[in-house]
Amino acid sequence: MSELNAVQAYAKNETNCRFFFDKLCEILRCQTVSADSRHAGDMEKCADWLARFGREHLGMAETKVVPTEGHPCVIMHSPELPDAPRVLIYGHYDVQPAEDTELWHTEPFEPCLKDGVLYGRGTSDDKGQFFVWLSALKTLWAVNGSYPLNITVMLEGEEEVGSAHFASVLEAHSQELKSDVVIISDTNSVVKGVPILHYSLRGVMCFEVRLRTADCDLHSGIHGGVCSNAPREMAKLIAKLHDENSHVTVPGFYDGVLEIEPWEKERLEKVPFDGEEYSAQLGAELYGEAGYTTNERRWFRPTLDCNGICGGYTGEGSKTIIPAFCSAKFSARLVAHQQPQHIMDCLEKWFKDNTPSRAKMEFVRGDMTSPYLLEQSGVGAKLFAAAQEAVRRGFGTEAIVCRNGGAIGVVAEFDRVLGVPTLLLGLGSPDDHTHAPNEKFEMSNFYSGIVAGAELLSILSQELKNR
Amino acid sequence: MSELNAVQAYAKNETNCRFFFDKLCEILRCQTVSADSRHAGDMEKCADWLARFGREHLGMAETKVVPTEGHPCVIMHSPELPDAPRVLIYGHYDVQPAEDTELWHTEPFEPCLKDGVLYGRGTSDDKGQFFVWLSALKTLWAVNGSYPLNITVMLEGEEEVGSAHFASVLEAHSQELKSDVVIISDTNSVVKGVPILHYSLRGVMCFEVRLRTADCDLHSGIHGGVCSNAPREMAKLIAKLHDENSHVTVPGFYDGVLEIEPWEKERLEKVPFDGEEYSAQLGAELYGEAGYTTNERRWFRPTLDCNGICGGYTGEGSKTIIPAFCSAKFSARLVAHQQPQHIMDCLEKWFKDNTPSRAKMEFVRGDMTSPYLLEQSGVGAKLFAAAQEAVRRGFGTEAIVCRNGGAIGVVAEFDRVLGVPTLLLGLGSPDDHTHAPNEKFEMSNFYSGIVAGAELLSILSQELKNR
Repeated sequence: MSELNAVQAYAKNETNCRFFFDKLCEILRCQTVSADSRHAGDMEKCADWLARFGREHLGMAETKVVPTEGHPCVIMHSPELPDAPRVLIYGHYDVQPAEDTELWHTEPFEPCLKDGVLYGRGTSDDKGQFFVWLSALKTLWAVNGSYPLNITVMLEGEEEVGSAHFASVLEAHSQELKSDVVIISDTNSVVKGVPILHYSLRGVMCFEVRLRTADCDLHSGIHGGVCSNAPREMAKLIAKLHDENSHVTVPGFYDGVLEIEPWEKERLEKVPFDGEEYSAQLGAELYGEAGYTTNERRWFRPTLDCNGICGGYTGEGSKTIIPAFCSAKFSARLVAHQQPQHIMDCLEKWFKDNTPSRAKMEFVRGDMTSPYLLEQSGVGAKLFAAAQEAVRRGFGTEAIVCRNGGAIGVVAEFDRVLGVPTLLLGLGSPDDHTHAPNEKFEMSNFYSGIVAGAELLSILSQELKNR
Repeated sequence: MSELNAVQAYAKNETNCRFFFDKLCEILRCQTVSADSRHAGDMEKCADWLARFGREHLGMAETKVVPTEGHPCVIMHSPELPDAPRVLIYGHYDVQPAEDTELWHTEPFEPCLKDGVLYGRGTSDDKGQFFVWLSALKTLWAVNGSYPLNITVMLEGEEEVGSAHFASVLEAHSQELKSDVVIISDTNSVVKGVPILHYSLRGVMCFEVRLRTADCDLHSGIHGGVCSNAPREMAKLIAKLHDENSHVTVPGFYDGVLEIEPWEKERLEKVPFDGEEYSAQLGAELYGEAGYTTNERRWFRPTLDCNGICGGYTGEGSKTIIPAFCSAKFSARLVAHQQPQHIMDCLEKWFKDNTPSRAKMEFVRGDMTSPYLLEQSGVGAKLFAAAQEAVRRGFGTEAIVCRNGGAIGVVAEFDRVLGVPTLLLGLGSPDDHTHAPNEKFEMSNFYSGIVAGAELLSILSQELKNR
């Protein structure tokens, strides 16, 4: 156990911790807002910084900044160990905008440490979380002068804007990116101080429905009563999408949905959860599909939401028209093993079948991301056991094991393009204000995460050997 | 019959017709767009022009431009005949905007005569129609040097912007405005070349419903499934407002609605109507309340329309949120003898009763105008008989007798404030493009209308004598 002790000792050394912290702050100061073209220069600068950090501090044999039609992607490879397992560590260095500075208590791009909490845009999503891994690599490299397995680091610059060019980078570099496992820390736990292992993600699919009931808006006095009204027809469709139990009524919508297994229910019951507190936090009454608990609804069940609706006159005062047009946007959250393409077909058919002849319907297909499930057998079981052991060593506790209600497009892409499973180790806290003002990251998670990360790579070097 | 002949002869004289036409063109050139404050000076100028015209050409004993907090109102009185009947002629000199000049084939404010049709903003609504009456007055005054009854002319400058200050003018001048009948030509016929007598108008009431289901929009991945969605709750309410027969389901909504009488059905069957043509004109499938024909639906039945709806994300692409807020605007068209206040109460109660606890509902009351009915007995019968005789003399045909689906706020006000019935003689054609580009007026209606108008005033001077 001497190696482990050396790793832990290095990671916990005050000077080294100061180094990790200072370097993290350097990238947090980069205003890598991918949505804002004015920051294109900052994106380039940050990508270069990361590649240089890999060369200078992580002993990377190859570091490159891969240009895309959008923002660049950083790829680094450790020195080749021909027969050793391969681990790909993914992160993203772009962040959400932070223009609402009046809502921030500190400067969003000037990291500020206060009572063990680091405030600033990107601290949790995802610079702080992926820098845990770069710090773990730095630890292993500094202690051993080598890695126990092949490490690839891939840092994307477009996660916050839909990863538009990610698939093409994956496809173009599929050979060198091929690995045994992808590790991602880009999620948040449901309990402060306790990491979370997500073995499943919901997928998502978006579409828009447009209805037209007349050539143009009509005077409701002259014509009121003689024809339908686009918002009314849309309302009837939306109202019909769910039954009185909040089940989606679209035939085929639940095709492929895995029922919740007993072990999952058992795990779920262990997750600390206060419904009243959650309801108060949202300012919303908890309400959903009959027969399921709140956490089952958000993590295990598919949903169908109207994301926006617009039709007729929406300005000040009133305008007595019969609106001729109404548009509504929808998204469905899908769970394993729903097929987005099939669900899209079912929805389009349903809207066609249920729109009366008095409305002309246009169904516009949008983006789709498949749901993800890391089966808790075979390699999934091995990865989770390794992760739990590493978390025990780093945090002194066990990670929460749970599904996640969100979608992470790149996970579906790693699966689709490379056929590689992803281990999702969430180091964010439930109150990190991701995407919101006053984003923060608990530094205890940062430092414990570095130990756990280094341990996990060591454990995986053994566990994945005879794959 | 020598007097009648002299009137007809004067009204049909080519030089006089040229005078009527030229004077009409003068006011059409005034850009009296009441909605646009940049035209406030044009409003003043036009009001002054009208008052001067009354003094110089109509022998008016009193002419005044009454200022309001908005645009002025012109009031003129003929020389007092103590025991003679009193007729109030109403019109409005303000017009709709015409900023969409690229859709006009001619300049909107430069009247253009082509094949007996006069094009320009305000030709039909309402300058052309009320100038028929000023020309009729000019005829009577020129031929006789006196009027057979007391004439008051009231020309409003805010009809197109909701007549906000009309009631206060009526109230402040109620004594001098008190009359036996108000005559208004500000409606359109359903058959070209044939005037229309409207004995009823629908009322209108507007309201807005606002729903909130959470403190703010929620991430549909993290929270999707655990709570409702404001557009969905709104959709369920809108879908529930009508049953499968398109009857409004709100208890009390039909309180006071007069059933269609046999004589009305008989009259209605005489109105030329081609459903297919009407449907093609609107680009809409004819669809409405079961048990009623299309014309019954638009003229005799109340309606409830959603005028606009807005909630969640309505921009480009998609945003996977659970919208926390949705607003919808509604208007109801009311028929005699529905009470707007009562219907508003019924609707507010219905929305309160039908909104589930998971949504916070706000009901915002808007404007109300009462429906109007000129009973076809007593004074109503007398007025219609007189009008039909005048129309026969002017147009050589009988006017169509019908209800109207629209609301004219001032008619309800003349009834409420002065207790005076209104005779609505529509001289516009069905294809006049009122409120739209290329508004026009048939000059045959203009000239025949002058004869009919002068005749009607003569007839009324006899018919109303022993009121």
